[in-house]
Amino acid sequence: MIDTDICIIGAGPVGLFAVFEAGLLKMRCHLVDALPQVGGQLSEIYPQKPIYDIPGYPSILAQELIENLMEQISPFRPGFTLAERVDSIEKDQAGKFTVLTSEKTLITAKVIVIAGGLGCFEPRKPAISGLEDFEGRGISYFIKDPELFRNKKIVLSGGGDSALDWTIFLAEVASELTLVHRGESFRGAPDSAEKVGQLASEGKIRLLLESQITSVSGNGHLQSVTVAGKTRQDFAFEADHLIPLFGLTPKLGPIASWGLALDKSAIEVRLSDYSTSVEGIYAIGDINTYPGKLKLILSGFHEAALMAQSAFKYVYPQQKLSFKYTTVNGINAF
Amino acid sequence: MIDTDICIIGAGPVGLFAVFEAGLLKMRCHLVDALPQVGGQLSEIYPQKPIYDIPGYPSILAQELIENLMEQISPFRPGFTLAERVDSIEKDQAGKFTVLTSEKTLITAKVIVIAGGLGCFEPRKPAISGLEDFEGRGISYFIKDPELFRNKKIVLSGGGDSALDWTIFLAEVASELTLVHRGESFRGAPDSAEKVGQLASEGKIRLLLESQITSVSGNGHLQSVTVAGKTRQDFAFEADHLIPLFGLTPKLGPIASWGLALDKSAIEVRLSDYSTSVEGIYAIGDINTYPGKLKLILSGFHEAALMAQSAFKYVYPQQKLSFKYTTVNGINAF
Ligand SMILES: Cc1cc2nc3c(=O)[nH]c(=O)nc-3n(C[C@H](O)[C@H](O)[C@H](O)COP(=O)(O)OP(=O)(O)OC[C@H]3O[C@@H](n4cnc5c(N)ncnc54)[C@H](O)[C@@H]3O)c2cc1C
Ligand SMILES: Cc1cc2nc3c(=O)[nH]c(=O)nc-3n(C[C@H](O)[C@H](O)[C@H](O)COP(=O)(O)OP(=O)(O)OC[C@H]3O[C@@H](n4cnc5c(N)ncnc54)[C@H](O)[C@@H]3O)c2cc1C
Repeated sequence: MIDTDICIIGAGPVGLFAVFEAGLLKMRCHLVDALPQVGGQLSEIYPQKPIYDIPGYPSILAQELIENLMEQISPFRPGFTLAERVDSIEKDQAGKFTVLTSEKTLITAKVIVIAGGLGCFEPRKPAISGLEDFEGRGISYFIKDPELFRNKKIVLSGGGDSALDWTIFLAEVASELTLVHRGESFRGAPDSAEKVGQLASEGKIRLLLESQITSVSGNGHLQSVTVAGKTRQDFAFEADHLIPLFGLTPKLGPIASWGLALDKSAIEVRLSDYSTSVEGIYAIGDINTYPGKLKLILSGFHEAALMAQSAFKYVYPQQKLSFKYTTVNGINAF
Repeated sequence: MIDTDICIIGAGPVGLFAVFEAGLLKMRCHLVDALPQVGGQLSEIYPQKPIYDIPGYPSILAQELIENLMEQISPFRPGFTLAERVDSIEKDQAGKFTVLTSEKTLITAKVIVIAGGLGCFEPRKPAISGLEDFEGRGISYFIKDPELFRNKKIVLSGGGDSALDWTIFLAEVASELTLVHRGESFRGAPDSAEKVGQLASEGKIRLLLESQITSVSGNGHLQSVTVAGKTRQDFAFEADHLIPLFGLTPKLGPIASWGLALDKSAIEVRLSDYSTSVEGIYAIGDINTYPGKLKLILSGFHEAALMAQSAFKYVYPQQKLSFKYTTVNGINAF
């Protein structure tokens, strides 16, 4: 069990910066994110794209901003639980919160900060008949341990970078590898696409372009997939594993069931401190809504600062909080 | 006469960033500041000090932040009127604003953004009897044109960098130069202090340490100053000019008389868009107040973003404003 002052749900830019603002006020933080890496949308969707409206940066790559934030918060030594989704939050009689993740990790905290962005990133699922029946029984949307696929018959589908990169990687691992892609060319990096074309022409993989998987079947575990092509008859072939790689898309997910006042898929907050309808729970960044709200990174930073002041008063109602400048006092003087 | 979409009063970090947010929405800005340089408190009070709570910068020197902001807003080509104080704002029947500065510059604008920080920086005045009688008649607090002092008898007072730097500079210009300082050593840079000591020991200037000017006199124009010392009798000597250099301190100044709802020396604003009690006038940064307000640079940045959206709707009530990301659309696509 992990115990902390503030449990932050979501390690996007706003959750990360909240560690800094809480740290200035000597509150320790633990972050949980469903993704295996920090950075939220920036690291998942556009790591190599420039952002132009971070104040003081005429231009900064999304991933660079995340790295800078990680450096900025490092003096406060936050804890991280990654690749786990927060499923439930409970508040006990004494006002203490207990957070439970998808992997059954328990975290207790005095304050909860939801910095969940657009929600949990979940895999985009293709429309294949029978797909959900074989999830966890031959069908997976992530590759956690490539060794699981050694000497197996593997089918990948998708046309972006992750489909290309995993095709190249797993070509060496699988006994048989098929890449199925709807288009006639790839969206991913040209040199990866070229390498995949080369593997196919060398007979090391089977490449099915302008094709779609229409159904899957098996007996308890996946055994075969059926592919429909533009220029050929539907045909089925043996497969131990199918890995559809169509990217991730955020879904509000469990947050919707935590009993907080919502407006569409955003959490309603008070404007002065970004607190939610449950005392001790705050919501900052893309996940919240209030009059005038803009889903901007710079707004989340401001929300984190005001949240921290309010959270401090909630945790230490007796203590006086004097406002200090980092320039004058450094980051450890509060 | 200058005509613009938005006249921004105050060119501190928040006024500067407002140019960016307005520029994204294709509104042109003109900035006015009482100081001769941009940057507000950062450039005037602590240019060489590190700030630790600018998100994405584990540490950045105040002046560096200002330079980065200047670069960030440069694509939007803002206009600048520096070293002039805004004295009055008038709104005509049609809702158009006219701004008048201390130097009688006229600026017309559709929207006014007050980013006046703690107010106008004004010189700190020492307690010297008769001082105000000779302001503009031998007593000045800034040195705009050093040539005015050629071959004159000059007295400087103060112990910081500007007193030291101007002593070194004017030693060559004045016919006679005296530096009066209350302390026994200087607060300014050690090498400047050493240089001043050397000028004194070479007889090129007169250095009066542990001394204070107690009174000034003259006949219409300054003629003499009287100095009290710790270790010697009061004595008077001839002076054409006295320049007290005790730094600048911000005063709310004319802003208080613009008919806006105030709370102490801050302007009350609506939380959702930082508009004031007068339609078309916004207040952002240190100058405003609202529940939860923190006088932080990062909060001013957020306020600038929300202000710009609201100002756009005020100026173009018919136009639809669609929210776009700079990463996706660049800075000229709105
Ligand atoms: C293509 C693109 C371009 C953009 N360009 C800009 C731009 O130029 N300027 C700008 O300011 N903004 C831009 N944005 C928006 C910006 O990315 C978001 O405002 C920002 O990511 C919000 O940060 P956040 O920390 O609130 O949430 P996110 O970055 O969304 O992070 C939220 C995190 O919470 C996690 N999470 C959610 N629910 C749970 C749960 N139950 N358990 C565990 N973890 C959970 C998610 O996995 C995610 O990692 C852009 C967005 C996109 C997609
Ligand atoms: C020593 C010190 C350390 C600080 N450290 C930090 C820190 O670590 N982090 C942080 O976030 N903040 C810090 N601050 C506060 C920070 O400097 C302010 O929040 C910031 O400067 C506010 O910016 P602004 O643009 O609102 O106003 P300002 O920087 O005050 O600029 C306002 C400008 O408006 C001009 N002005 C006012 N009235 C008029 C008028 N009538 N006509 C023309 N011009 C006018 C002034 O001359 C001034 O240049 C610190 C401040 C000080 C003094």
